[in-house]
Amino acid sequence: MNCELLAVGTELLMGEIVNTDAQIIARGLNEHGFNVYWQTVVGDNPQRLREAVETAKRRADVLVTTGGLGPTADDLTKETVAAVFGRPLEMDPVQLARLKERMGPAMTPNNEKQAMLPRGCTVLVNDWGTAPGCAFEQDGCHVIMLPGPPRECAPMFRERALPYLETLCGGVIGSRYVKIFGVGESSMETLVKPLMDSLSGVTMAPYAKEGECELRITARAETRPAALALCDPVVEQVRAILGNRVYGVDVSSLEEVVVRGLQQRHMTIAFAESCTGGLLAKRLTDVSGASQVFGYGCVTYWNEAKTGLLGVQPETIRQHTEVSAECAIEMARGVRRLSGADIGVSTTGYAGPTGGTEENPVGTVYIGLSWPGGETVLRPDRRYMRTREQVRRSAASHAFDLVRREVLGL
Amino acid sequence: MNCELLAVGTELLMGEIVNTDAQIIARGLNEHGFNVYWQTVVGDNPQRLREAVETAKRRADVLVTTGGLGPTADDLTKETVAAVFGRPLEMDPVQLARLKERMGPAMTPNNEKQAMLPRGCTVLVNDWGTAPGCAFEQDGCHVIMLPGPPRECAPMFRERALPYLETLCGGVIGSRYVKIFGVGESSMETLVKPLMDSLSGVTMAPYAKEGECELRITARAETRPAALALCDPVVEQVRAILGNRVYGVDVSSLEEVVVRGLQQRHMTIAFAESCTGGLLAKRLTDVSGASQVFGYGCVTYWNEAKTGLLGVQPETIRQHTEVSAECAIEMARGVRRLSGADIGVSTTGYAGPTGGTEENPVGTVYIGLSWPGGETVLRPDRRYMRTREQVRRSAASHAFDLVRREVLGL
Repeated sequence: MNCELLAVGTELLMGEIVNTDAQIIARGLNEHGFNVYWQTVVGDNPQRLREAVETAKRRADVLVTTGGLGPTADDLTKETVAAVFGRPLEMDPVQLARLKERMGPAMTPNNEKQAMLPRGCTVLVNDWGTAPGCAFEQDGCHVIMLPGPPRECAPMFRERALPYLETLCGGVIGSRYVKIFGVGESSMETLVKPLMDSLSGVTMAPYAKEGECELRITARAETRPAALALCDPVVEQVRAILGNRVYGVDVSSLEEVVVRGLQQRHMTIAFAESCTGGLLAKRLTDVSGASQVFGYGCVTYWNEAKTGLLGVQPETIRQHTEVSAECAIEMARGVRRLSGADIGVSTTGYAGPTGGTEENPVGTVYIGLSWPGGETVLRPDRRYMRTREQVRRSAASHAFDLVRREVLGL
Repeated sequence: MNCELLAVGTELLMGEIVNTDAQIIARGLNEHGFNVYWQTVVGDNPQRLREAVETAKRRADVLVTTGGLGPTADDLTKETVAAVFGRPLEMDPVQLARLKERMGPAMTPNNEKQAMLPRGCTVLVNDWGTAPGCAFEQDGCHVIMLPGPPRECAPMFRERALPYLETLCGGVIGSRYVKIFGVGESSMETLVKPLMDSLSGVTMAPYAKEGECELRITARAETRPAALALCDPVVEQVRAILGNRVYGVDVSSLEEVVVRGLQQRHMTIAFAESCTGGLLAKRLTDVSGASQVFGYGCVTYWNEAKTGLLGVQPETIRQHTEVSAECAIEMARGVRRLSGADIGVSTTGYAGPTGGTEENPVGTVYIGLSWPGGETVLRPDRRYMRTREQVRRSAASHAFDLVRREVLGL
């Protein structure tokens, strides 16, 4: 089925916000076997909104609108869609009662407008905000209207719109997300291409994001568990091809894998950061529950902090500079000693835009690791590092990946 | 003039990436007095692309396309636009030579396609990638084609497309960006509304983003300095209204203001972080040049790190818990002593989603400050804090703001 997304909102048109709703919905529709052919953005303008709805009615099997369901006079989506499809709006008493209960004394007369819905529609109950969504079919076009704020739109799409759409096409979709670090997108695609081409009944789609890759593996079946059971053998085939560059399945991040792995093993970790400047600690503590495995981090930007706080030998820095394998190892050892943690991890390098030497240009980073199983230093490939942000992010990701592989054996 | 943005790319349509180009261009056009009425996304499909271009030709004064200028067979934008507007593509020898020089031995025959441009167009030279952009006017419609990758599209729009468009409307635009912290968007709008309504020849637009606000003040004049000279008195009026909630003009962030302020005063800063878990150090070291003012940071997530590393008294934690004004002050003092920095800043709180007490629920944060001018503790308002990420970001922003106001007097 051919889908069109229509986002309604002057704040999008003026560039005040970015249209993340469109990405979330487009990706979700594609994963469920719907083709998205058009995305359009219009402002809170009745004529242009009407033109956009009429165009979509003519060319799409499914029209998904976002935004314009709120209480103010600017919010025109339901009125316009209802007019184009010839369905009068009617007060829904259940939604009105719900609104009144939710809003309490903040309920004003214009808020009642949110409970006006097209006659005969399926109500998409909004547990994440005030404006309900709705869905109906007319003249061969399925219309779904969702609220605009992303923290409402994303769950409304996932929990309300997708189940509605699944009833249209028989069966449900199940997906596994294979997360990959340490191989570029094009190399990964080359490696998995033969498998991808050999699949039937299961699809595989690659994505690249912030120095990592992801493979989405999707199948359709009568039930979600049955669909996932079709995906799982393909996940194992991907693991066989990519080895431990696969860092997890259906997990959110490298740092989450590290936190969960350390929790299971009752191990603790400490950081001594120079070039990453706190990013390792920040990313680890983004994971709820990090406090079980992480108690100490040091940001030692200056050499006197490396020597004074971590016990790096001044002679090491004199002989090798602070951006060296030798300094990285002494930092990792030092923070382990200081904190009593099982694992010490360090970073030292040139994040740029200035600094660096001929031998160690901007982008060079050494990552040190010290743990009961031994010590090691990693110097990641510095190609493709364009900005300070990229250098720092890549260094932090490599540090987490080193812990995952060397210490956790994952 | 009425503008339409047309993004071409299947990866956008499938939701693999978000359309940040549209936001950057829409905002830039609006700031320069152009009205954006439509944004459309189509895939690399010749029929639908042609339909979109024909529609835009009919209804827009300015059509800006992004994407589809590359070397592969999928890249169809120039071919389709040229066909709709009846302008043949011709090889541009200057751009071909430039391409050959830029690509060297990586130059393949299909790359030559990138130097094919519509007859009589203005070439928009691409210093950020291989595919040149172009602009022309025909039948009352101005067409501008830009490459899709955001790191090329953004500078191409700013440095090439905007100057071209400015020639169309006489005069140039100058804008000042007033950055504001410590007041919500709606309160700020209420405060500046009388000034906003009284302006003529100068426009003022509010934006809200990640716990901060911004006012863009814009004027048009013969030259950029003349336009800015019209803005500057309005900037002063805003300062008079909002006081030191204005943390800077034309600056990027609170942490940048802090780094520059410390550099000027030859002062140094150190961090003792609990709930922010490295975010203070990370944000400060996002600013290039931070190493001049920052040498030491400690992430003391556990109480034994607070006592052992920073010298917080165990009795203080027993009596007041680790989330208390007393603990925050001892942490700030401790890291100042440990590092020898002029300023010590600490954070301790409940970032959530679990933890907290009745008296200090999730979202409660204490920020400690110790410096030669004295000591202080801040407990920011915890309302509006919904997620762990918001609590941590807000705590870090409040810490930088405290340093700015108390120490730097900015």
